[in-house]
Amino acid sequence: MSDARGFEPSCPAPVGRYGQVLMAHGGGGRLMHELLERVFLPAFANPALAAGHDASIVEAGGARVAFTTDSYVVRPLFFPGGSIGTLAVNGTVNDLAMAGARPLALSAGFIIEEGLPVETLERVVASMRAAADESGVAIVTGDTKVVDHGKGDGVFVNTSGIGLVEHDLPILPASVRPGDAVIVSGDLGRHGMAIMAAREGLRFESAIESDCAPVWAPVRELLDAGVEVHCLRDLTRGGLASALNEIAGAARVGITIDERDVAVREDVRGACEILGFDPMYVANEGRFVAFVPEADAARAVELLRRHPVSAGAAVAGRVRAEGSPAVRVRSLLGVTRVLDMLSGEQLPRIC
Amino acid sequence: MSDARGFEPSCPAPVGRYGQVLMAHGGGGRLMHELLERVFLPAFANPALAAGHDASIVEAGGARVAFTTDSYVVRPLFFPGGSIGTLAVNGTVNDLAMAGARPLALSAGFIIEEGLPVETLERVVASMRAAADESGVAIVTGDTKVVDHGKGDGVFVNTSGIGLVEHDLPILPASVRPGDAVIVSGDLGRHGMAIMAAREGLRFESAIESDCAPVWAPVRELLDAGVEVHCLRDLTRGGLASALNEIAGAARVGITIDERDVAVREDVRGACEILGFDPMYVANEGRFVAFVPEADAARAVELLRRHPVSAGAAVAGRVRAEGSPAVRVRSLLGVTRVLDMLSGEQLPRIC
Repeated sequence: MSDARGFEPSCPAPVGRYGQVLMAHGGGGRLMHELLERVFLPAFANPALAAGHDASIVEAGGARVAFTTDSYVVRPLFFPGGSIGTLAVNGTVNDLAMAGARPLALSAGFIIEEGLPVETLERVVASMRAAADESGVAIVTGDTKVVDHGKGDGVFVNTSGIGLVEHDLPILPASVRPGDAVIVSGDLGRHGMAIMAAREGLRFESAIESDCAPVWAPVRELLDAGVEVHCLRDLTRGGLASALNEIAGAARVGITIDERDVAVREDVRGACEILGFDPMYVANEGRFVAFVPEADAARAVELLRRHPVSAGAAVAGRVRAEGSPAVRVRSLLGVTRVLDMLSGEQLPRIC
Repeated sequence: MSDARGFEPSCPAPVGRYGQVLMAHGGGGRLMHELLERVFLPAFANPALAAGHDASIVEAGGARVAFTTDSYVVRPLFFPGGSIGTLAVNGTVNDLAMAGARPLALSAGFIIEEGLPVETLERVVASMRAAADESGVAIVTGDTKVVDHGKGDGVFVNTSGIGLVEHDLPILPASVRPGDAVIVSGDLGRHGMAIMAAREGLRFESAIESDCAPVWAPVRELLDAGVEVHCLRDLTRGGLASALNEIAGAARVGITIDERDVAVREDVRGACEILGFDPMYVANEGRFVAFVPEADAARAVELLRRHPVSAGAAVAGRVRAEGSPAVRVRSLLGVTRVLDMLSGEQLPRIC
């Protein structure tokens, strides 16, 4: 478990204080951002990377091509509602969708630990094919590496994706404006709790299934209808809280969320309470947040609700002009608290 | 070490005979192709993947975009002449070049083992930046995951790349024709022997440095000059022998190589002899083979020699109409032998 309280937001601890990479550096929270800011962003400095978005836009022969990558190291490989394969395909399709890009093609890179049963690999690959078919994308290029037993963990999967941007909206954190409505596309916390239950052998009254699903269809619905989408972000590692903090930080705005308007299923809330998790920080794999002008908000919600994957969409908050503390949440009891970014992640290797 | 003799080319052993993934399944040889043919190709069936090339071409808004991916698991992370970082950038740039595509942008995905010194990560990232700058490509999108100590091996790097195809040549194995000249771009075996020496702590008279380098510049030279390039393939895992076997198999032709016309440096040849390696099978990271019509061969060699990375280019063989046994090599003594595909790879985790 990670703890953000040891860090002052105004004075983040340098990565070098540890000297070694910790599990928390992979958690999507403050430590991961410090690692990015210290090691990766200065070295790879370029405007596309600095935009801080899930996918970058590359100009290619007159076309605007979105390009994104993600490696998947989830444990266990199979869990209620999905597998590392469905996650790898949907996660990358969703990163393209978050750039407002129509997914065109995926790559698949496998790092296999010696001794993995071939049958396990076949199941992973079959789940990828099924997920790719669901989104209408082809897996057009791939790579396979094998590492010694004890130097990997079953199989790690990297998927990269390319998509086509067919509109003129700059869908980016920098486009977020004070007054924007913050739409959350559905109930939170299912993926994280499904993984947790599978990993720890916990049995709840009803099995909690991951929400892992592609979200391009509802995003396309918004774009086709001409909704002025300012920013989109999927709610993966670090959950809604981390996504909002990232966007608030990049856009230099504040965000206030109303807990009343954020859906969490009863079984998920119960599991979170038993295990001491806050659903605001739990990873999802089929949920996103959309920032749209207030004037477009009601129509956007109505459009999103046409799709099963975002049938629970609702306006959950507003963007404020002032930015410190950046993200606040008004609880069910009417008390406003700070929704800070965690140091690491509640649950390592969630995706 | 792997041995191909247990396999009849006409009746490959099924992957399922083993039931588990072996190191040899990652070696670029026959076993890896069996894994691809049994597990990956049927599941992901599509024309782009079936073309069997290093990069696939995707139509994106009127542009022809080449797309490729590779994961890098080389041990050690740093070796004479390069690092996992230079390898990851040059390897993917070269896969784009092998499709005749101008490299536009790369992604970088890191799977880091808990406990890796941050300073090591910084060195890897700095080497990637330097290699990217050399090829004029930006690393525009990335991802970082951390796995538990003992579940990884320092750091694994995935790079995917997109490039732009700006010509009409179908540069593919299927374009290879009987009579084509087979041009090898330089001396063989340096990368493999550099890794071997670094891994085993061997000291030869002179340190053998990896040939790791980008090859887009000489490929562009061929394309700009209007050489009718039929196929290109970099000589990585499995070396020249595997590349020729792959292409001969896909194009349903035979290939005869003259050993006299394949350069191997004296120190590399000596190291190979001591260690029992055949340079024809040793991995390279800055070498490729080009198939061009006989009429274009002399001009192509002259153009390639203008670039330091391919200064040693020479016509090393010819494509034959008949295909069995597919690849033959005429030795320095004038004896012709079969150059079969190995089962695995002489040296695991070479890239």
